[in-house]
Amino acid sequence: MTMDYLKVIPEYTIAFPVANMPQINLGDKIGSLVVDRMSQLSGVMDKDIYVIASKIVSKAEGRYVDLTTIKPSQEAHRIYGIIKKKSPALFQVILNESLSYKVNKFSVLSQHRLGYVLTSAGVDSIDDTTAIVLPQDPDQSAQHIASEVEKESGKKVAVIISDSEGRTDRRGANAVAVGIAGINPVRISSSVDLSGSVKVNEETICDMLAGQAALLMGQRGRNIPVVCIRGYQFDFDYKARATDMIHKDLLGIKMFNNG
Amino acid sequence: MTMDYLKVIPEYTIAFPVANMPQINLGDKIGSLVVDRMSQLSGVMDKDIYVIASKIVSKAEGRYVDLTTIKPSQEAHRIYGIIKKKSPALFQVILNESLSYKVNKFSVLSQHRLGYVLTSAGVDSIDDTTAIVLPQDPDQSAQHIASEVEKESGKKVAVIISDSEGRTDRRGANAVAVGIAGINPVRISSSVDLSGSVKVNEETICDMLAGQAALLMGQRGRNIPVVCIRGYQFDFDYKARATDMIHKDLLGIKMFNNG
Repeated sequence: MTMDYLKVIPEYTIAFPVANMPQINLGDKIGSLVVDRMSQLSGVMDKDIYVIASKIVSKAEGRYVDLTTIKPSQEAHRIYGIIKKKSPALFQVILNESLSYKVNKFSVLSQHRLGYVLTSAGVDSIDDTTAIVLPQDPDQSAQHIASEVEKESGKKVAVIISDSEGRTDRRGANAVAVGIAGINPVRISSSVDLSGSVKVNEETICDMLAGQAALLMGQRGRNIPVVCIRGYQFDFDYKARATDMIHKDLLGIKMFNNG
Repeated sequence: MTMDYLKVIPEYTIAFPVANMPQINLGDKIGSLVVDRMSQLSGVMDKDIYVIASKIVSKAEGRYVDLTTIKPSQEAHRIYGIIKKKSPALFQVILNESLSYKVNKFSVLSQHRLGYVLTSAGVDSIDDTTAIVLPQDPDQSAQHIASEVEKESGKKVAVIISDSEGRTDRRGANAVAVGIAGINPVRISSSVDLSGSVKVNEETICDMLAGQAALLMGQRGRNIPVVCIRGYQFDFDYKARATDMIHKDLLGIKMFNNG
């Protein structure tokens, strides 16, 4: 693709795959691997945003569950009776990761223990006997990866850990952020309408960034678990946590009635 | 921003604002305006995807509602008693746009007459006495705009009409697609897992594209209602409609119990 046209465009964001990442194993340093792969592209730049699929973070942190060791509860069996597509043991893992949940005929819509609403509580099956769950503390994981990148590259970056997630009304999944480092997940702005009323707008930019990355990550097996987003204007925020975007009226409240 | 680094990146998507769009009035040809503004940037290119805020499409199509002519029903008054933030007349407009709905203390979660789940059925207030509703047929609007762009530029493009939309668990809004031309809203792929099972993945790419654009559209008053996304690899699909992404088990079914 030629890029001469970019010379006349005053503002843009660009997203590209951090290609050729290896398969991730327990203990792998994802930040180091990102810096290594980026050195084959343009190198890390200040204010790069690295969106990282939660799956590889979970793998590096060993967040596997051996399904043969799980004893499904009556409730897990009941859910299996409704949905079938997963095993009772896998449903039990989903319940274990959930603060509250509701069941429909397609899926378990879970309020994950961290507060996020996620289909199946972000639990994936790796094979018939192994599940993988979200990182224990995705914000901390993101901060750890950002620190590695910064230490090895000398550049200041933001990190977003993303998970694929659909909407109940729609076929197919989008992606959402579950962990964050260096960037506030919410953008707040205000404007004045034609009546003179001030309207405050909040936008979940971390989910927009996760979606932009997911467009390139694409399907499993394509081996693109990391995408770099460059050009988005933001101020570093080192206090921000992904849980900051949980609706404040819902924090600590069970959203669903477990049924 | 320098773009020399792009020379070493084999694959990327770029998003940029189609800046300096004028205020849109009834009858304005949005496609023509896009071609005009793009001529000041790089010109329209084949396979450009133009993401367009539904608000300006509604304005061009005159989708205003004079709230002083609306007689709120008992149900609209009841909802006003719960939520307050909007007027009973505005709640009535929301109900009129809804196939089904449910009310919580923050908002009306509506199944829009076209099938999409949208907060407040995509209805916005323009000022104290005027509301604006989604285009009558957003797919048709998108096709119309795409045709204008193609006719005036000689290039083949896709168009996505987007609306801002939040998730119940999160502060702030993301964006979703409500109308489409030339691109299938869902990407389908398959992969084989470690057990040898084939997994089929569906991804709502139109929502990912809408989110990517929303990052640049930003808040009201910034006057960026159109964003160009370039570089995303897709095959033109002229039969695709945004309603193709409604979950097939939900098509034609009232999702909520109106209460």
